[in-house]
Amino acid sequence: MNTENKLETMRHSASHVMAEAVLSIFPDAKFGIGPAIEDGFYYDFDLPRSLTPDDLPVIEKKMGEIIKANLPFTHRELGKEEAKKLFASQPYKLELIEEIPDDKVGIYEQGNFVDLCRGPHINSTGEIKVFKLTNIAGAYWRGNERFPMLQRIYGIAFNSRKELEEYLTLQEEIKKRDHRKIGKDLDLFVFSDLVGKGLPLFTEKGSIIRRELERFVVDEELKRGYKHIYTPDLANVELYKTSGHYPYYKDTMYPVMKVDEEELILRPMTCPHHFQYYASRPRSYRELPFRIAELAKQFRYEKSGELLGLLRVRMFCLADSHIVCQKDQALDELNQVLDLIEYIALVIGYKPGENYRYRLSLGDRKDTKKYYQDDEAWDYAENVLRDVLKQRKANYFEAEKEAAFYGPKIDIQMKNVAGKEDTAFTVQYDFVMPKRFKLSYIDRDGKEKEPIVIHRSSIGAIERTMALLIEHYAGAFPTWLSPVQVKIIPVADRHLDHARKLEAEFKSRGVRVEVDDRSERMNLKIRQAQLEKIPYMVIIGDKEVADNTVSVRRRSGEQLPNQALACFLETLTAEISSKL
Amino acid sequence: MNTENKLETMRHSASHVMAEAVLSIFPDAKFGIGPAIEDGFYYDFDLPRSLTPDDLPVIEKKMGEIIKANLPFTHRELGKEEAKKLFASQPYKLELIEEIPDDKVGIYEQGNFVDLCRGPHINSTGEIKVFKLTNIAGAYWRGNERFPMLQRIYGIAFNSRKELEEYLTLQEEIKKRDHRKIGKDLDLFVFSDLVGKGLPLFTEKGSIIRRELERFVVDEELKRGYKHIYTPDLANVELYKTSGHYPYYKDTMYPVMKVDEEELILRPMTCPHHFQYYASRPRSYRELPFRIAELAKQFRYEKSGELLGLLRVRMFCLADSHIVCQKDQALDELNQVLDLIEYIALVIGYKPGENYRYRLSLGDRKDTKKYYQDDEAWDYAENVLRDVLKQRKANYFEAEKEAAFYGPKIDIQMKNVAGKEDTAFTVQYDFVMPKRFKLSYIDRDGKEKEPIVIHRSSIGAIERTMALLIEHYAGAFPTWLSPVQVKIIPVADRHLDHARKLEAEFKSRGVRVEVDDRSERMNLKIRQAQLEKIPYMVIIGDKEVADNTVSVRRRSGEQLPNQALACFLETLTAEISSKL
Repeated sequence: MNTENKLETMRHSASHVMAEAVLSIFPDAKFGIGPAIEDGFYYDFDLPRSLTPDDLPVIEKKMGEIIKANLPFTHRELGKEEAKKLFASQPYKLELIEEIPDDKVGIYEQGNFVDLCRGPHINSTGEIKVFKLTNIAGAYWRGNERFPMLQRIYGIAFNSRKELEEYLTLQEEIKKRDHRKIGKDLDLFVFSDLVGKGLPLFTEKGSIIRRELERFVVDEELKRGYKHIYTPDLANVELYKTSGHYPYYKDTMYPVMKVDEEELILRPMTCPHHFQYYASRPRSYRELPFRIAELAKQFRYEKSGELLGLLRVRMFCLADSHIVCQKDQALDELNQVLDLIEYIALVIGYKPGENYRYRLSLGDRKDTKKYYQDDEAWDYAENVLRDVLKQRKANYFEAEKEAAFYGPKIDIQMKNVAGKEDTAFTVQYDFVMPKRFKLSYIDRDGKEKEPIVIHRSSIGAIERTMALLIEHYAGAFPTWLSPVQVKIIPVADRHLDHARKLEAEFKSRGVRVEVDDRSERMNLKIRQAQLEKIPYMVIIGDKEVADNTVSVRRRSGEQLPNQALACFLETLTAEISSKL
Repeated sequence: MNTENKLETMRHSASHVMAEAVLSIFPDAKFGIGPAIEDGFYYDFDLPRSLTPDDLPVIEKKMGEIIKANLPFTHRELGKEEAKKLFASQPYKLELIEEIPDDKVGIYEQGNFVDLCRGPHINSTGEIKVFKLTNIAGAYWRGNERFPMLQRIYGIAFNSRKELEEYLTLQEEIKKRDHRKIGKDLDLFVFSDLVGKGLPLFTEKGSIIRRELERFVVDEELKRGYKHIYTPDLANVELYKTSGHYPYYKDTMYPVMKVDEEELILRPMTCPHHFQYYASRPRSYRELPFRIAELAKQFRYEKSGELLGLLRVRMFCLADSHIVCQKDQALDELNQVLDLIEYIALVIGYKPGENYRYRLSLGDRKDTKKYYQDDEAWDYAENVLRDVLKQRKANYFEAEKEAAFYGPKIDIQMKNVAGKEDTAFTVQYDFVMPKRFKLSYIDRDGKEKEPIVIHRSSIGAIERTMALLIEHYAGAFPTWLSPVQVKIIPVADRHLDHARKLEAEFKSRGVRVEVDDRSERMNLKIRQAQLEKIPYMVIIGDKEVADNTVSVRRRSGEQLPNQALACFLETLTAEISSKL
């Protein structure tokens, strides 16, 4: 057994120990299931009363006694009938026994507790090193809302006190950085029951960040030769039947709206709209690569249980693009796409290797149901994608059976605050849609030819990226993204006039500035500005008014030397426009 | 009879003359109706064959003969039975006779033609001064598609040849400026049957104009203290039931989308979303006026017959705003709103008085069904709006019964190319929504109070404004809005390298530039750039390469003196940033 498995076994055993402890407190407890999970374990109980957080130390204490007693785990196998007798008072266990296909029912026993269990377990309870119960939640029996609601107790267990503490520190940090908490504290976005779930309203401050990100992406893409367009949020459902998306995405698409002669539907992706633009007139090889980009609203119906702040929403804005090009332009275009992605990532604070890496997602030639059949095209496309990654010496790994139905892709695997990796967005090579939408161009030789398409995002969905950035920076955004860049703090009311003059000066230079004009103590105002994560505080007292200088403090607490206003303005506007 | 009525009578008589001419060519013609309309007349016929444009001169010639013969119009009254005998071979006329309530049937006769008609008419056909038949169209009998399709001939008639020619010149101009035609010629937007009717796709060039307009409005509003936010395109239908919009707008709203536990609907207006933002935390009097603005997507289901290019669409983007303020702040806020509207209008090329004027739209205290009941609030609001207009010495007129259900408004009445006036957008005073959404603020005295709301747009719907601007400028946009600002035209291929250098220089200064690198004659390239309405052509020949100067030509044909590149760049970038 390797270290990882040993730890998992220990965690699973801890759940049995917890069950024994609960049984000692609630002799009538009915038991659900109690598996090991990442970092710990849980067990579901049917109890005569609701648990409160105060119960956890009591259960922990009892568990400590059981561990101290170092009781052995013993394994037995029973026949079904015998097992049913043993668990006669445990309806959930009886249900599980019924489902066992053969007549061998494994049980594990320690101290006063016997459980239906396949194992394995540690030798004795004393092998449980350090553990902690973390919280209580409701959970339906078998995860099905038609069955009874049980009470689930979560715990964690580690090999050492140090590991446990590291884990708790990380959890604390994740909680502090939770974009929902920071979003509320800094007033970046709100939800309204009347508007609906999963539909965030960006506040003034959140909208500033969003607008800065959007304009940055659009301007950067324009510079790199993209045509940045606007297409409608909805379309006739025929468009998605033509693209072939409809059967794949039907379940997450909003329902069709029948109006007069049309069946309209909110779009779950942008590609078919962009293809209609491309096909709106004949195209020449001289127009290729034809790089279409859009800040495109997309609509996918997520179940309410899956919604999560700005990370999982029911409508989002994707910085989307479709590059129509000749097959032999693909390598160069893909390189330019990755250049763009890496540049944008760098500006918003993500380093390749450290914060993200690439995944080359390949198809499966044998899976003819999921993947479009064209071995030659798959070979070509997969090789091009691999070549690009190799040429760039990119940090990447390969994954089978992760391609889109129309071709292989490069996934941008982003690490979140908890260190977990997830696909943020993708770069896809598509040789199928050009056929379905009959895309073509007239080549140099006067003949009509079929292009290929690269689907890509450069910054992902704005909502999701904002959630990640809020957590990445814990709300302390770089100056160019900060909703308020400078807070002017007059020391006393008599400095207010001068503060207003400075405010106008900052504003005329395009700096987002606020004056804290309340009659409060300076230290309180500074603390408040720090809580609001404002990058610079400009403190104005008698000396500053007399000299026309500014006393500048960073949100970190660092005090800059007193300087002329013009001097600070130069440094500040340079910092903002460099986006550093 | 005044001049206007006399002209109308003459036009109506011309329709009878046209009918007589048609009868002389088609003895079996069946006649529908033939009224006077604006600028002219029409008559609907049921004929044995389809008319072609070649028929019009033949009918015109015959009409000329009838006019020359100066036949008198004579009036008679018949009983119903006698009339039915007279019109025995005219089924449409018989249908009309049946519907006459009493037994008096008026007829008018001239030459060989007798018509069922109430009149009045001119004395004799010779009084028709100048006329012209303009076109043929299909028209259902009684405008109902279940009835037969008739052939309608349109004509125009005036008191003088000069008036007729002025009219035709204007029509020619309107046709040339039609935004649908220019939009196609200049590749600004396209439609796709697969995407759906009334859902324009903005092309690269059209999107440049749109983005310039959008950023201009947003930046200007931000400067003026607006909070520019993003809220979702859809909401739970409950939101519109709360606002009271649902019963009023149900017919033009898209159908409800039922998904899981929610009933979602595409929003037909933004106010309820903005109120939810306002109400997301308690507000203090210090935060008022609270100016919320958004480039808000809105969705109204227009019938396919009413769709018209970018003017009438099924989804549009309104530069919308809602100002929550204290009642006694309204006057000042309204003044600032009109300042903004006039500033934006001026920048995009509209002058008050010349291109638009204001309409003060009042309610009707007696109409308790249509208007919210609160005499005092109506008095206050109407007076504030009137005071603002008077104070500014604005060009305005008053109109009864044109208010919104929640309060009076100022409409911005914009003139189109044809000189017709239409409401482009409005500024509304609202004392009802704050009650429905329980909006409040804590006043200086610590008490909770109810604010009022000003609804307003600053530039209207982007799509509609673009349509108006395309027609206003006939596609020759001011430089800051032009999709391509400079076209570099190398005289010969040997000047291409230098042209590329200039291109890079222009681009680095943010100028939108293109090089015409085709091996074509210079004059052809210049003509092409003029057709594309590109403000500046920079022509590069031997002299310009040698001197590093530029030879600049405006799209008007005006040739600027040869100048150093740096010099032209200065003038050009100043022109662009001043938006003149």
